[in-house]
Amino acid sequence: MSKKTIKEILGDYKKLLHHDITIQGWVRAFRSNRFIALNDGSTINNIQIVVDFENFDEEIIKNIKTASSLKITGEVVESEGKGQDIEIIAKKITILGDNFSEEMEKTVLQPKKHSLEVLREQAHLRFRTNLFGAVFRVRSAVSFAIHQFFNQNHFFYMNTPIITGADAEGAGEMFGVTNFDLNQIPRDENGDIDFAQDFFGKKTNLTVSGQLEAETAAMGLGRVYTFGPTFRAENSNTTRHLAEFWMVEPEVAFNNLEDNIDLAENFLKYVIGYVLENCKDDLKFLDQRFAEEQKQKPEKDRAKEGLIEKLENVIKKRFMRVSYSEAIEILLNSKENKKGKFQFPIEEWGADLQSEHERYLVEKHFESPVVLFDYPKEIKAFYMRLNEDGKTVAAMDVLFPGIGEIIGGSQREERLDVLKTKMQEMHVDEHELWWYLDTRKFGSVPHAGFGLGLERLILFVTGMTNIRDVIPFPRTPKNAEF
Amino acid sequence: MSKKTIKEILGDYKKLLHHDITIQGWVRAFRSNRFIALNDGSTINNIQIVVDFENFDEEIIKNIKTASSLKITGEVVESEGKGQDIEIIAKKITILGDNFSEEMEKTVLQPKKHSLEVLREQAHLRFRTNLFGAVFRVRSAVSFAIHQFFNQNHFFYMNTPIITGADAEGAGEMFGVTNFDLNQIPRDENGDIDFAQDFFGKKTNLTVSGQLEAETAAMGLGRVYTFGPTFRAENSNTTRHLAEFWMVEPEVAFNNLEDNIDLAENFLKYVIGYVLENCKDDLKFLDQRFAEEQKQKPEKDRAKEGLIEKLENVIKKRFMRVSYSEAIEILLNSKENKKGKFQFPIEEWGADLQSEHERYLVEKHFESPVVLFDYPKEIKAFYMRLNEDGKTVAAMDVLFPGIGEIIGGSQREERLDVLKTKMQEMHVDEHELWWYLDTRKFGSVPHAGFGLGLERLILFVTGMTNIRDVIPFPRTPKNAEF
Repeated sequence: MSKKTIKEILGDYKKLLHHDITIQGWVRAFRSNRFIALNDGSTINNIQIVVDFENFDEEIIKNIKTASSLKITGEVVESEGKGQDIEIIAKKITILGDNFSEEMEKTVLQPKKHSLEVLREQAHLRFRTNLFGAVFRVRSAVSFAIHQFFNQNHFFYMNTPIITGADAEGAGEMFGVTNFDLNQIPRDENGDIDFAQDFFGKKTNLTVSGQLEAETAAMGLGRVYTFGPTFRAENSNTTRHLAEFWMVEPEVAFNNLEDNIDLAENFLKYVIGYVLENCKDDLKFLDQRFAEEQKQKPEKDRAKEGLIEKLENVIKKRFMRVSYSEAIEILLNSKENKKGKFQFPIEEWGADLQSEHERYLVEKHFESPVVLFDYPKEIKAFYMRLNEDGKTVAAMDVLFPGIGEIIGGSQREERLDVLKTKMQEMHVDEHELWWYLDTRKFGSVPHAGFGLGLERLILFVTGMTNIRDVIPFPRTPKNAEF
Repeated sequence: MSKKTIKEILGDYKKLLHHDITIQGWVRAFRSNRFIALNDGSTINNIQIVVDFENFDEEIIKNIKTASSLKITGEVVESEGKGQDIEIIAKKITILGDNFSEEMEKTVLQPKKHSLEVLREQAHLRFRTNLFGAVFRVRSAVSFAIHQFFNQNHFFYMNTPIITGADAEGAGEMFGVTNFDLNQIPRDENGDIDFAQDFFGKKTNLTVSGQLEAETAAMGLGRVYTFGPTFRAENSNTTRHLAEFWMVEPEVAFNNLEDNIDLAENFLKYVIGYVLENCKDDLKFLDQRFAEEQKQKPEKDRAKEGLIEKLENVIKKRFMRVSYSEAIEILLNSKENKKGKFQFPIEEWGADLQSEHERYLVEKHFESPVVLFDYPKEIKAFYMRLNEDGKTVAAMDVLFPGIGEIIGGSQREERLDVLKTKMQEMHVDEHELWWYLDTRKFGSVPHAGFGLGLERLILFVTGMTNIRDVIPFPRTPKNAEF
């Protein structure tokens, strides 16, 4: 670990001038049998190696190819060429790994443009491309910023169970987890599957949310957050859905809905600000890519802002805070609704908002991130706190341009009697959630929290458009390769 | 979020003296109808509230019970009592949540000592006890320190898949993941289970390790680490095994075995140092608890060091680095082995080391953390790099006092031909791991990594002895409650 990464070398090269250093990496290009662009993954930038072929064995020069791995010792000098501050005059070159050149032809490592689909089929190699290097470095920075934000704000990180017997939202379809030999599933005397004989002695699934467990922890530790994988067994083959994705769920004792909205806004701004500050090179590359993508589109479909510009604007503005009822008024009175341009026309208060409505509010009406709150209780989950009006609950959704809902949350129902009534109305099993109800029996307190789908945020920050391109090994219907 | 936590108030009280503040929390004790010890989970320390009963409604005073939740406004004054710097003279008290007193009798919230077993059955409430508050705050600090260490050392955090078709170690029993209705599993024309009709179109399991996928990422990004849940469907009802646990797996391009050992040692010392620095109050509590536990034991079984002392010693000393062959010599010549005191006597080079041998080396022979390396190839996984001697592989295990193996890792076999031979010898399917082999075909590089079981480290740091007490909701055979 005493070895310096290329990022460190390029970032602080002055002390290294006219010293010999050793670097290791992969060849991105070898021009004119003289200039090697070497990359070690630490940054999108390559370091230029100058090879004087007279000083080296012909055999070595011949074997340096795109994607070869090299160890090079040489002198750091100021570069006369454009595009880099320094270069390394090679004194010693070792080829660490050759290429199987014929097989290389079929990989995404060969130096030409590959479609995102092909790159996805070679997810194990796409880390070595500029694009995916950038995306996954940004993903890492976002993840770290999330931990840092919560740590600075006195939250405790906690792990909620992945394998669970409970279905938090009563909604999403769940994957089953079993240790049964599927050819010989044991039956009880009634001929039913005998889950008592399964590993956990009961039917178990993969979690769809850690919220309910996080609530129990917030009732002791005050401020907690989870950051872990969650699962949906929904057969949705879209650019926005994954069967396995990562979710961040803070839960805060003593917070009300307004505190919760403040937390969500501060949180998003911190994370985006962190990336703007710490991922400049990768964002520059992604910004250029985004601009080129826009040029391919018909003018009316192009984004109004560049990628970096969009991120900078999000952290500058205060998010618009709009009640569901106000939003419905705006939508009812919109030209789009009156002219029948929405696929799902808004007819009355109580309607569930679709992505098209959310995007209208964010991208056309307010031209700003929007926080909607106080939704009709019928379209939200049982655990959201009933408002005084008896019709709405203290729910909130944060809507972002180009993405729609990026955060969903609420103040939680802390009153045992109200919660029980809600559970009965919505057919949620009280007995299964005995432990959840317990937290309302012994010193119950107002509390609130939300969920952020990590990959949605990464889409927003990188300008990528398919959610399969922002997680290393996407899990989708009929696809669990690697 | 503008509200200050009790930790913040106690930590920086001078500016607050003679000002009114509002705090919220749970009653830990209410002495003499006058002194409330209030806790909000941010710290193990309570804040003392002084209630002059003449100023309050009798009804309120009567309803303040252990575990009640309160909101209190009052003046911060210097305390004349022992044990605290300040106290709050209550001016306004609101009871946020009452207690169901009869049901309270059956919970771990009533003010008396509860066994760890009982606390485990009420995992949803144990966050509100001093002990588990401390344990889970320390767990959070350890987790953050892990991210911070890797971030400072230019690693990228990555998420490897949880649902997978591959079995990395070819060892651990895996949980199946399926979307089939187990009452109606589809069969193909041969009568076999038709996994093509399952959600992912193939048989899938829960991951036992993200290492192989992390290796592919290291071959592009250089330095990566995972930190996520892993699973073992082993029917082990012990104090050291969980069916679901969290693992940290760094993987570093260009690192050899020695670099890997350096990384592991620096990493552990950083994390333990962070906890010593940042969890002083919780460690003090755990240290006292540890000392009391030791007193209950017969003198010969007592730990030689206190908890904090042990942690401080670990970060002071350089870990002993000992080859497997040297370790076997030491064990063969030990009194214990000669007198037949080991349950599994060591007879010759090649023996797999058991926990008793590891603990002998660490606790008796070296009295220091020990790193063993260069193990016989037969007892280690296929992906570990074959040494020049043809008999050993570049594996390493870090052994800690009281715990045994806390980290296991290796330099990886980067030579395609050697790797393929190894896979054939060990019956690992080449076709299934085509993508893993690819990374050895196109610019293969030496690399190394390791795995740390998070809960083992938390046991070590907290002095707890049952692994079910260091994860919020443990998953073990016949147990997936909550």
